[in-house]
Amino acid sequence: MIHTFRTISPLYTDMYQLTMGQAYFLDNRHKQPASFDYFFRKNPFKGGYVIFAGLNELLELIQALRFEEDDIDYLHKQGFHADYLEYLKTFSFGGDITGMREGEIVFPVAPIIRVDGGLHEVQLVETLLLNILNFQSLIATKASRIRYSAGTRKLTDFGLRRAQGYGGLQASRAAIIGGFNSTSNVMAAREHDIVPSGTMAHSFIESYDNELEAFRAYAGIFPDNCVLLVDTYNTLRSGLPNAIKVAKELSEKGHKLKGIRLDSGDLAYLSKKAREMLDDEGFADVQIVVSNQLDEHVIKSLIEQKAPIDIFGVGTSMVIGRPDGAIDGVFKLASASRIPRLKISENVQKTTLPGRKKVYRFLDKKNSFYADCVALEDENTPVRMTHPFHKEKCLSLEGRIHEDVFIEHMTGGKSTENGEKNPVILREKVAERLKQLPEEHKRFDFPHIYKVGISDKLLETRDAMVQKLQDYI
Amino acid sequence: MIHTFRTISPLYTDMYQLTMGQAYFLDNRHKQPASFDYFFRKNPFKGGYVIFAGLNELLELIQALRFEEDDIDYLHKQGFHADYLEYLKTFSFGGDITGMREGEIVFPVAPIIRVDGGLHEVQLVETLLLNILNFQSLIATKASRIRYSAGTRKLTDFGLRRAQGYGGLQASRAAIIGGFNSTSNVMAAREHDIVPSGTMAHSFIESYDNELEAFRAYAGIFPDNCVLLVDTYNTLRSGLPNAIKVAKELSEKGHKLKGIRLDSGDLAYLSKKAREMLDDEGFADVQIVVSNQLDEHVIKSLIEQKAPIDIFGVGTSMVIGRPDGAIDGVFKLASASRIPRLKISENVQKTTLPGRKKVYRFLDKKNSFYADCVALEDENTPVRMTHPFHKEKCLSLEGRIHEDVFIEHMTGGKSTENGEKNPVILREKVAERLKQLPEEHKRFDFPHIYKVGISDKLLETRDAMVQKLQDYI
Repeated sequence: MIHTFRTISPLYTDMYQLTMGQAYFLDNRHKQPASFDYFFRKNPFKGGYVIFAGLNELLELIQALRFEEDDIDYLHKQGFHADYLEYLKTFSFGGDITGMREGEIVFPVAPIIRVDGGLHEVQLVETLLLNILNFQSLIATKASRIRYSAGTRKLTDFGLRRAQGYGGLQASRAAIIGGFNSTSNVMAAREHDIVPSGTMAHSFIESYDNELEAFRAYAGIFPDNCVLLVDTYNTLRSGLPNAIKVAKELSEKGHKLKGIRLDSGDLAYLSKKAREMLDDEGFADVQIVVSNQLDEHVIKSLIEQKAPIDIFGVGTSMVIGRPDGAIDGVFKLASASRIPRLKISENVQKTTLPGRKKVYRFLDKKNSFYADCVALEDENTPVRMTHPFHKEKCLSLEGRIHEDVFIEHMTGGKSTENGEKNPVILREKVAERLKQLPEEHKRFDFPHIYKVGISDKLLETRDAMVQKLQDYI
Repeated sequence: MIHTFRTISPLYTDMYQLTMGQAYFLDNRHKQPASFDYFFRKNPFKGGYVIFAGLNELLELIQALRFEEDDIDYLHKQGFHADYLEYLKTFSFGGDITGMREGEIVFPVAPIIRVDGGLHEVQLVETLLLNILNFQSLIATKASRIRYSAGTRKLTDFGLRRAQGYGGLQASRAAIIGGFNSTSNVMAAREHDIVPSGTMAHSFIESYDNELEAFRAYAGIFPDNCVLLVDTYNTLRSGLPNAIKVAKELSEKGHKLKGIRLDSGDLAYLSKKAREMLDDEGFADVQIVVSNQLDEHVIKSLIEQKAPIDIFGVGTSMVIGRPDGAIDGVFKLASASRIPRLKISENVQKTTLPGRKKVYRFLDKKNSFYADCVALEDENTPVRMTHPFHKEKCLSLEGRIHEDVFIEHMTGGKSTENGEKNPVILREKVAERLKQLPEEHKRFDFPHIYKVGISDKLLETRDAMVQKLQDYI
């Protein structure tokens, strides 16, 4: 039985990491110092920010990464060199990981995570890093948008059945980080100490000869935790009257009906009618749960319509991060053998930022985020920054206070345990952090673009390298 | 180390399956015979069909499903009843699974898989079944669309870094079933005996002091399997001239440059220029590999432009099934205690089909798919079918030959091993099957809708039940 996904074969990677790895090794370049940056270029969902998630799982996986005998056997059959395979037998990641905390709000272009180590070991973790961080950050971001719409109402994750296979386990944790209260996914709930939540399906009701009988049976077994699904046959003519009957029967026995769930029809109309019917019978504290193709936009609209909904169950759209489905995060070489490295591109926006770098987050007078500046690791705190692709756009940082958002997560292959792991606590940190992000960046439609710039020294370094490469070409 | 994902905790489910399970058990209904159908309502990608995938993994997981001590402990802490937990300790799935083969072409509304067994055991596999089948069918379908565009050119899966977490493992197998030739995902390649493929990344080239040096180093180590990435600095002025130099050097040593890869810029323009440059130097057999945000539409356009591309590397859009990201597959109760069951809905299209059913696939004279008819398990081969939601639409099936597409996959909890498991062989079966699907259903824009109907007896059964329920309400 596999109960955790805390280790994974290093073959969970792209083939080219291993072919490049062999080339580095046989060329005796595998231990040359290298620095790679993880960053993305575009916010998902046409939004203004990303919630960074997945780091703790990544650190755990990287720390445990070892080639077992069957991995080596397979690579041998694929024609890898015997010397390289011998080396892989003893491989473990011994590098350093620095960067943003899990749950931090992050923005395009600026590095989120920097990985330093030998060229081979850093190259070898690329695919795993991207696979883990891209997806969980996508989902945490989607969940935070849904949280933004839902305000203080409860949100529960119903997504496992529509999740992308085993990715569902990772999505449920990221959903909590982004702002969800609970999940229907029992395995994820156990793994991450999340509240599991669940009620009943239509099949339960249909399996009885009639709805009332089904409601009574369920209420008999869960008298204090009973949420009745009322739309199997007809919400207002059958489901609600039957739920009210059962609510009365529970009251008589000293229990309380917890809630009803609507899973079809017009949720604004039906929730209002249901609230009226329940209130009229003295069940003002019976909660209304709704589900069915919800996302941040539907929830926003329901709340604008003053739908008296207590709990939103959100499935597909959250668990797969619809419509984007992926963050375009990349992992790019910034320095090798202590020399800054650069990829130039026909698309200017894809030219990378060379050198070992860190990020400063500058604040405004109200303690809100003002701008992120990417600078070289070894320079002084920048006093000015320039737009990464439009040199004419400059911003003074003189006299502003900043936060050191870049911290050490792994040193010499060992996790520093500096980051919070519990998604429920991370959720509270995210909520606090989002208060520091000005409203205009959280807007759904054409959000204001957060300022990310580069230091003068980084700009100079890049310009000089671009110039040199153009001369070379 | 976890090298396979062949077992999973039964807690990989929605909480309500277990609360319903407890209610069934304590109500002594858990062994009542039940029949559930897996089907979907809408083709993804605005397409005309779905390639059914994931069945073999599902059968393996269901057969191995057991509650371990830590599962039981967790459920105990969640307040589940001691008697129910005792029952779960001995639980294993003992039901029957019947339906379409993995790799079959399937259509909306008609059942794909039917699960028969005790109410409790069938309910308990719902979430797992949906999680596994929905996703892999989505990806196999997306891959088959990309294959349709690509014709006979090679397709390779580059998606792991943008996959939805561990779902990437499942996506790579489904990609092969849908028509891909190889994958960069080494772990999936090993698991499923797929060809792993990979070349080099920009970081490899940048880590050397110049591009030519990097190319030479790689060619030195992989002289017979060398695909050079030519767009790190400038494709036509640097990458290609350097690749040609290395091709010549390889030739002199009795080797051959295998290919070049383009990963940015206008792929139609650059591939034509690259082909010319390579041909002019006598390297007509050096292959051109392209990647960068490809999908079925981009590939179709590239081929229409006569881009001389040999291999397409497809990542994000395939591996997450963009833009849909999910199939709306559901698992609905059709019969309990040998009585047909039905869910009616305000949305007519969501009314379910009652009773234990099977599917007949009727063929036309050319052996092409003509129509699928859903009928009750115990009726004779239907001679007429009716549109499931528009009674006025009828179709005669008189004298037509049909295929029995519904086969036994599991009997009494044991896999019958009737289905092909190897994705490479499944790919060939899919390709054969797609030949039987008329072209107009494969078109990307407004494909012709394949006819799916219900038998007279099923129609009568449903009508009578709807009538009865309406009287009851």
